[in-house]
Amino acid sequence: MVHTGACIANLLGQGGSRKYHLTCNWLRYFKNDRDRRDLITCGCAAGVAAAFRAPVGGVLFALEEAASWWRSALLWRAFFTTAVVAVVLRTLIEFCRSGKCGLFGQGGLIMFDLSSTVATYSSPDLLAIILLGIIGGIFGGLFNFLLDKILRVYSIINERGAPSKILLTIIVSVITSMCSYGLPWLASCTQCPEDAVEQCPTVGRSGNYKNFQCPPGYYNGMASLFFNTNDDAIRNLFSTGTATEYHMSSLFIFFVAIYCLGLVTYGIAVPSGLFIPVILAGATYGRIVGTLLGSISNLDPGLFALLGAASFLGGTMRMTVSVCVILLELTNDLQMLPLVMLVLLISKTIADNFNKGVYDQIVVMKGLPYMEAHAEPYMRHLVAGDVVSGPLITFSGVEKVGDIVTALRITGHNGFPVVDEPPLTEVPELVGLVIRSHLLVLLKGKMFMKEPVKMSGSFVMERFGAFDFAKAGSGKGLKIEDLYFTDEEMQMYVDLHAIANTSPYTVVETMSLAKAALLFRELGLRHLLVVPKTPYRPPIVGILTRHDFVAEHIHDLFPSLNPHNFHSASMGG
Amino acid sequence: MVHTGACIANLLGQGGSRKYHLTCNWLRYFKNDRDRRDLITCGCAAGVAAAFRAPVGGVLFALEEAASWWRSALLWRAFFTTAVVAVVLRTLIEFCRSGKCGLFGQGGLIMFDLSSTVATYSSPDLLAIILLGIIGGIFGGLFNFLLDKILRVYSIINERGAPSKILLTIIVSVITSMCSYGLPWLASCTQCPEDAVEQCPTVGRSGNYKNFQCPPGYYNGMASLFFNTNDDAIRNLFSTGTATEYHMSSLFIFFVAIYCLGLVTYGIAVPSGLFIPVILAGATYGRIVGTLLGSISNLDPGLFALLGAASFLGGTMRMTVSVCVILLELTNDLQMLPLVMLVLLISKTIADNFNKGVYDQIVVMKGLPYMEAHAEPYMRHLVAGDVVSGPLITFSGVEKVGDIVTALRITGHNGFPVVDEPPLTEVPELVGLVIRSHLLVLLKGKMFMKEPVKMSGSFVMERFGAFDFAKAGSGKGLKIEDLYFTDEEMQMYVDLHAIANTSPYTVVETMSLAKAALLFRELGLRHLLVVPKTPYRPPIVGILTRHDFVAEHIHDLFPSLNPHNFHSASMGG
Repeated sequence: MVHTGACIANLLGQGGSRKYHLTCNWLRYFKNDRDRRDLITCGCAAGVAAAFRAPVGGVLFALEEAASWWRSALLWRAFFTTAVVAVVLRTLIEFCRSGKCGLFGQGGLIMFDLSSTVATYSSPDLLAIILLGIIGGIFGGLFNFLLDKILRVYSIINERGAPSKILLTIIVSVITSMCSYGLPWLASCTQCPEDAVEQCPTVGRSGNYKNFQCPPGYYNGMASLFFNTNDDAIRNLFSTGTATEYHMSSLFIFFVAIYCLGLVTYGIAVPSGLFIPVILAGATYGRIVGTLLGSISNLDPGLFALLGAASFLGGTMRMTVSVCVILLELTNDLQMLPLVMLVLLISKTIADNFNKGVYDQIVVMKGLPYMEAHAEPYMRHLVAGDVVSGPLITFSGVEKVGDIVTALRITGHNGFPVVDEPPLTEVPELVGLVIRSHLLVLLKGKMFMKEPVKMSGSFVMERFGAFDFAKAGSGKGLKIEDLYFTDEEMQMYVDLHAIANTSPYTVVETMSLAKAALLFRELGLRHLLVVPKTPYRPPIVGILTRHDFVAEHIHDLFPSLNPHNFHSASMGG
Repeated sequence: MVHTGACIANLLGQGGSRKYHLTCNWLRYFKNDRDRRDLITCGCAAGVAAAFRAPVGGVLFALEEAASWWRSALLWRAFFTTAVVAVVLRTLIEFCRSGKCGLFGQGGLIMFDLSSTVATYSSPDLLAIILLGIIGGIFGGLFNFLLDKILRVYSIINERGAPSKILLTIIVSVITSMCSYGLPWLASCTQCPEDAVEQCPTVGRSGNYKNFQCPPGYYNGMASLFFNTNDDAIRNLFSTGTATEYHMSSLFIFFVAIYCLGLVTYGIAVPSGLFIPVILAGATYGRIVGTLLGSISNLDPGLFALLGAASFLGGTMRMTVSVCVILLELTNDLQMLPLVMLVLLISKTIADNFNKGVYDQIVVMKGLPYMEAHAEPYMRHLVAGDVVSGPLITFSGVEKVGDIVTALRITGHNGFPVVDEPPLTEVPELVGLVIRSHLLVLLKGKMFMKEPVKMSGSFVMERFGAFDFAKAGSGKGLKIEDLYFTDEEMQMYVDLHAIANTSPYTVVETMSLAKAALLFRELGLRHLLVVPKTPYRPPIVGILTRHDFVAEHIHDLFPSLNPHNFHSASMGG
């Protein structure tokens, strides 16, 4: 759902789809980096809000996990989005109350309602909960570790092409089916409780107490977990006053199966998430702990299941406020909030000692140049000039078309500094930065001159509309390969002053790399110009991009120094 | 409570109080700007969490309203703080359950529990709610407008000294008492309902159904609102199934009285907040609307009271997510969340057309140089060099003690650029920035030299400990007036290289002021150096501080241009 929300937002952000005639003129206002990014963040928020019926949780998830950086305007937009989601969802659920929409809308706005439980807890309970949090954190860290290994294997398999992808999916599906059908045979039959509110055994629908090969009046506990929708399975595990519903052995086998199946399922070519498998495994784990510790704690195993789910979420996702609010909105159990917060704190702290959060791991694995919000300690020992990688390609304020075309063809750079040189100015002077997509639009316009003279900016403005330079959709922009120039045109000149960003952010070459990284990250830059400290040199030393701040790149430049040495050096100093 | 939390955090942040022997050695690690700011943010979060028993709401309030800028580390710290608050609060409430702590702990962790109500709503209800939100937004905006006027008058009165302050407080107290005691006389007596769960009339304690001059078996509705704690009054207004408990006239008079008393009480010399008066007025307003619209809407007046409170909070505070979560944690009514979000959206949008949020207004009124998170449109037409205000005082890398002392005495500047000049370097070169407090520590150390030669940095490091330069507590730092120098010392030299920040953030003088403001704000800077664009000039043009970005200062420099002209110009272009 998060992915779907983000995809729809991206589609809107690039102005709809012209191919499928799904486009609106006003959507062009979103055609810039910043608004498109905001839109995608709001899409994520809407996805979470719709998936868990948790509007506030959705806002917080988007801000804590999805957004690279945070503004109050973004908060307000995400809130607006999820408020609309909440109202629409509420209306649809109201409409579907009579069951005419299949499984949608069952349970109303609250998926796992626990509000009726009265929770009082004492010191032994707190001890049990702290233990639960610690072990949950370890299991969460282990989950991330194993998932990373498995995803690395999967990515090799998936890269081999569609047949491998489909084969992998089929294998995992078969394993899942075999587990789901095979494992309940191991469980023994349990007699239906006398006071069951629900029909026991349930036949022909998702719910509690699955009959599965048992005589009438009996149910199979493990089948009740496996042969349900995940929603219903979680609801059963969270349910209170049902301490004896599941045998310990059933819970244990189910836990191992779900933990492993959750690991092998993520990353195959089906749309599956992490939240629900992790909640399911965590809830089973919590119920096991709750049952085991029944002698020292009076808390209901159903509440332990909730706390177990929290501990697993804290241990894998490493989110705090958003998980807290999502769990609150899922269960409607405000009384448990202090305990949920406590468990999250403990499990996140424990798991943080082993590895990073699962989404951060995936970003690293995909090789995306993700910048941490904080500068790494070893960056304090380097300056901006150290990591600039050459060769630098600069353009003159009035540049020969041929040179620009060649530069665009032989490099993949997206930003080029523009430097005015004599005779245009007395000494070489930095004009600003032009970006590839603007250059291509300018070149396509073919406003070339025979002589290298400066044009007035308004001339360019008259020729182009305000939206000609708008950001194109993914893969839709102009490419240098699409443009053709005659030999005569290649010898002509074009004025870059009008399209140059004349206020690029700059740092001096002796600026601490840590501070340059902070500037880059906090302002969400794509290019940071490095200027010389001493005079009588060209006015620009280089350009820093996201890639230059990535640890691997820095390690390549300074192989003798590894990040841990840096770190200890900085600690020692 | 928010204020108290922030005060305690500030005290910890400056290392405790040496005067009262409340100091710990490890607290010195907080003695820097950033950690102290974070600590105060966490203090605010703890205050809200404790006041409303709303731990998640506290985190969000601190981030949405208190923190100038936001990092994931700060989120984690605030969450940690409020989790501790929640656990402590829960333990204390458990301990006080039997009533041995006075009014504390009544109602448990949820102050106004509404979870038992079943809310189903239809289209007419939605219309009624939208109307409620619109009018609530107008009332909220009006509240801010009036509060601003009243606070301006109060600040004049309060500045006259303690007697005026006390007199003002007494007058407001007398008016409040007269209203509270006088107005219930206007209300008629109502017969106790047959099916009242509570004792009716209640005598001798806070609660519902106050007798107040009525015969036995009757109660006075207005007295039931006035003669209660605010908590109980809100609880009564929020209560469902009590549509006929209050006469329309009682509600109306109470609303006018509370709205006006809330306005005149804030800003006098008593610790009173805005949240509870606004919630109380909003709840009364909501109940009035709910009763009036009873014919078109089936929603309970108690739920209308909740939505009315939301609309007033949205209209005055202009917070979204945090108000939403605080209301959710106050009332435990997740079913109403979509409606609360809708009302908040509407009332905030309406009120934003009139004025700014109440806290923003107070910041402006106090004359604090608060920078908006976004750059103002007129800033796009100015460059950094335009707003630099002189004269600029720079120091040489090795500077005469007398010159530094004079500069510190005659100016109040906090930051001074350091420039190395020939013969130390070939051409004048910017070394970095020194700040006043570090200069004072260095001067106090009296490491002076007879000749202007460069010392090795390690020499300074040997002489001073790492914490000598730590930020002192408010008003506790060294002052230039406290230092005394002989004439001989004044003629000596001191090396500033070791204490200069050699990586100050810089912008070129032709940088757009809007982009400079963004840099300043996002990185939380105190000084931003402006460097020249062209060579053969001194290496520094000026320093920008927070004050230079404030609209008034810019308006003083460019009186012919007013912000609205700027704005329309930018729209036109």
